[in-house]
Amino acid sequence: MQEARVFSAGAPRRGRDCPTGRDCLCALAMNLDPSPLALPFPAIPPIAGARPRVAKAHYKAWDRCDLTFVEFAEGTTVAGVFTRNVCCSSEVEMGREQVRLGRARALIVNAGNANAFTGYRGREAVEQIMAQVAHRLGCEPSDVFVSSTGVIGVPLPKDKAQAGVAAALDAPECSWEEAAATIGTTDTFTKGALATAIVDGRTVTVGGIIKGSGMIAPDMATMLGYVVTDAAVEVNFLQDLLTAASLRTFNCITVDSDTSTSDTVLAFATGKAGNAALAGFDDPGADAFAAALNDVCRQLAHLVVRDGEGAQKFIEVQVTGATTDDSARRIGLAVANSPLVKTAIAGEDANWGRVVMAVGKAGEPADRDKLSIGFGGVWAARDGQPLAEYDETPVAQHLKGREIRIEVDLGLGDGRATVWTCDLTHGYIAINADYRS
Amino acid sequence: MQEARVFSAGAPRRGRDCPTGRDCLCALAMNLDPSPLALPFPAIPPIAGARPRVAKAHYKAWDRCDLTFVEFAEGTTVAGVFTRNVCCSSEVEMGREQVRLGRARALIVNAGNANAFTGYRGREAVEQIMAQVAHRLGCEPSDVFVSSTGVIGVPLPKDKAQAGVAAALDAPECSWEEAAATIGTTDTFTKGALATAIVDGRTVTVGGIIKGSGMIAPDMATMLGYVVTDAAVEVNFLQDLLTAASLRTFNCITVDSDTSTSDTVLAFATGKAGNAALAGFDDPGADAFAAALNDVCRQLAHLVVRDGEGAQKFIEVQVTGATTDDSARRIGLAVANSPLVKTAIAGEDANWGRVVMAVGKAGEPADRDKLSIGFGGVWAARDGQPLAEYDETPVAQHLKGREIRIEVDLGLGDGRATVWTCDLTHGYIAINADYRS
Repeated sequence: MQEARVFSAGAPRRGRDCPTGRDCLCALAMNLDPSPLALPFPAIPPIAGARPRVAKAHYKAWDRCDLTFVEFAEGTTVAGVFTRNVCCSSEVEMGREQVRLGRARALIVNAGNANAFTGYRGREAVEQIMAQVAHRLGCEPSDVFVSSTGVIGVPLPKDKAQAGVAAALDAPECSWEEAAATIGTTDTFTKGALATAIVDGRTVTVGGIIKGSGMIAPDMATMLGYVVTDAAVEVNFLQDLLTAASLRTFNCITVDSDTSTSDTVLAFATGKAGNAALAGFDDPGADAFAAALNDVCRQLAHLVVRDGEGAQKFIEVQVTGATTDDSARRIGLAVANSPLVKTAIAGEDANWGRVVMAVGKAGEPADRDKLSIGFGGVWAARDGQPLAEYDETPVAQHLKGREIRIEVDLGLGDGRATVWTCDLTHGYIAINADYRS
Repeated sequence: MQEARVFSAGAPRRGRDCPTGRDCLCALAMNLDPSPLALPFPAIPPIAGARPRVAKAHYKAWDRCDLTFVEFAEGTTVAGVFTRNVCCSSEVEMGREQVRLGRARALIVNAGNANAFTGYRGREAVEQIMAQVAHRLGCEPSDVFVSSTGVIGVPLPKDKAQAGVAAALDAPECSWEEAAATIGTTDTFTKGALATAIVDGRTVTVGGIIKGSGMIAPDMATMLGYVVTDAAVEVNFLQDLLTAASLRTFNCITVDSDTSTSDTVLAFATGKAGNAALAGFDDPGADAFAAALNDVCRQLAHLVVRDGEGAQKFIEVQVTGATTDDSARRIGLAVANSPLVKTAIAGEDANWGRVVMAVGKAGEPADRDKLSIGFGGVWAARDGQPLAEYDETPVAQHLKGREIRIEVDLGLGDGRATVWTCDLTHGYIAINADYRS
């Protein structure tokens, strides 16, 4: 990864370097360098039936765009997955209800204020935005989806929201990269993903943008992801596909085990590609579309890990031989969430004893004497004992890299899962303890 | 806390300062200073029926005592609680079986090698120690309890164990402080607790020693705790009391959420105080004894938190208003294990939004709009909203101290629990990532 490429696609920058062309603060306010694991923003083309725009609501004392508005064509279907945190925001509560109706005409994303833990005043602010946009578009308020990310415990200021929404409604269409930069808060680079599929003889585009890096900065929070496609997909099938993809992607990443009050992923299908609407896996092209959606979700999930607070290494935990896939995922997350495993990787230390510990504490079926642990394709321990012929040289070399793989084989069954995380470094402490809100 | 007091009772020191009178490495090898939260070692008197001794087994390249032997009088009863980590050591597997028999004549603790994940060779080493001690004392091998702490994945060397045990069998009786120093590995200070109770007209002593500081150093692990009393207590009642005390003490502490493969707490009752054996709460003095046992367990548990890796602040999380006590404990642990809460406390930041997040992710009943969060007796948020009259000044003052209290009220029921942890600092990363095994 060359630095120039990271910058060209990367973090919002002041002045000329800023992809929104405006003066941004975001991660720069904390003097955060772009993550060494950053990837460039992909060339997401315009997606028929979806028009992104950005505006300044001035939610914080900054001079950057912090309000994103995407207008969707009539007939757009929507699906969503949301945080399981029971102290969730009004946006999440209402979004959960709205996806049951399955229709979307607009998305509004506020950056700089999470509007979480703000009681009825927070809910009123969301309802005001929904009404304002619905009035302009001539749709139902329930067709307008709202997300917010930033400070917890401060009601979203209604006057700023109203002015920002008004500006966005009149703003010119912008690129997906500008939209992705505008939903970001303390992200150190701008995150997007792209895939295509042939459905019913037509090439459909699946694009996605996401923000989040764990709960990176004091009072900042939340992973917010949006997938937009021009394919026609019936709402129930879209929800099934998104739920399945989330289980293997967003639900398989962890930065610090802390679940935000506002995590949201929404998928919008405008239907403008002209294919016969997909309603199930028997329809032609459904498999290809599902693969593209899954691919975009996986890319987006990885980008969040790559921007994890203080991350220096991207870690993949491959679990095989578990009793079930779900058990494998839980074991993988126990390894990925273990501070001792994450600090060992940060220290480039092939400390497989810590992996054993993490597997054992997962609360899932495991037999110590059938357990095997490896790094980067080299087994360090097999069947409950250190390998006599274990050569740490290739493992030490592997651990010096940016992309680390930990292999865990339970030796019990066919259950398997892959989980992703980052290492735990001084950078995490610096961001979360040294910097004051 | 004056430094001189910490040193006099604190970490094993080289040469003259060393309480064992020998040259120790332990935490000094890592240049760890004594924890700022250290407490002095209490004046535990000799306990009738229990004779501690220490010896050098040279489990590592150090010149310190690393093998502890305690001989118990005939008739000593024993109870135990063990790690739930399914990848536990042979010592834990065997100890679990032994406490069912309820008799103890000896305890051996090896420091420097955890003997975990070592297969049949690890088990053979434990059986050899049990046979060697049983032969000398003329008891059953199952009367000999063995614990080990240190490197994972290296079988305990049988020759070193044999020589060390032989030396310990012939060693003179030592103080409980010497025993406590000898079971330590990377502990930065020596840990003990003392309580007394009047039982059946006699004053009984309850003493305890413990080692552990999370899984502090690379390949080092484990909390090992031992409670010894001269009271006569029937084995089933002793087990009931220890289990109940553990639930409110050892099971309510967390340093880094990582559960060791070897965690063990054993309670030995020699019966030499001459009281009529306690068999249940109807017996006179049973309440007083239970209170003393609980007090010692609580003190020992707190000492482990006070030596948590990199700890600069001791944090008490008080949860009230939960649906049940167990639910309250889970919520407290979710708060205490949250890296974002722990780093906020390290940064002396009254970030109650992170506490809200942690409560919400606990997976326990909670109602956002009834939730209240406070610090050091001052509510920051009540009933799901920030308090308009919230004054951060006294909270900021409280957070500057060493002893921090976080209050969580769920507003749902009568369930309550108190949980203890430490903050998450650069010291944790330094110990676990910068230092290589």
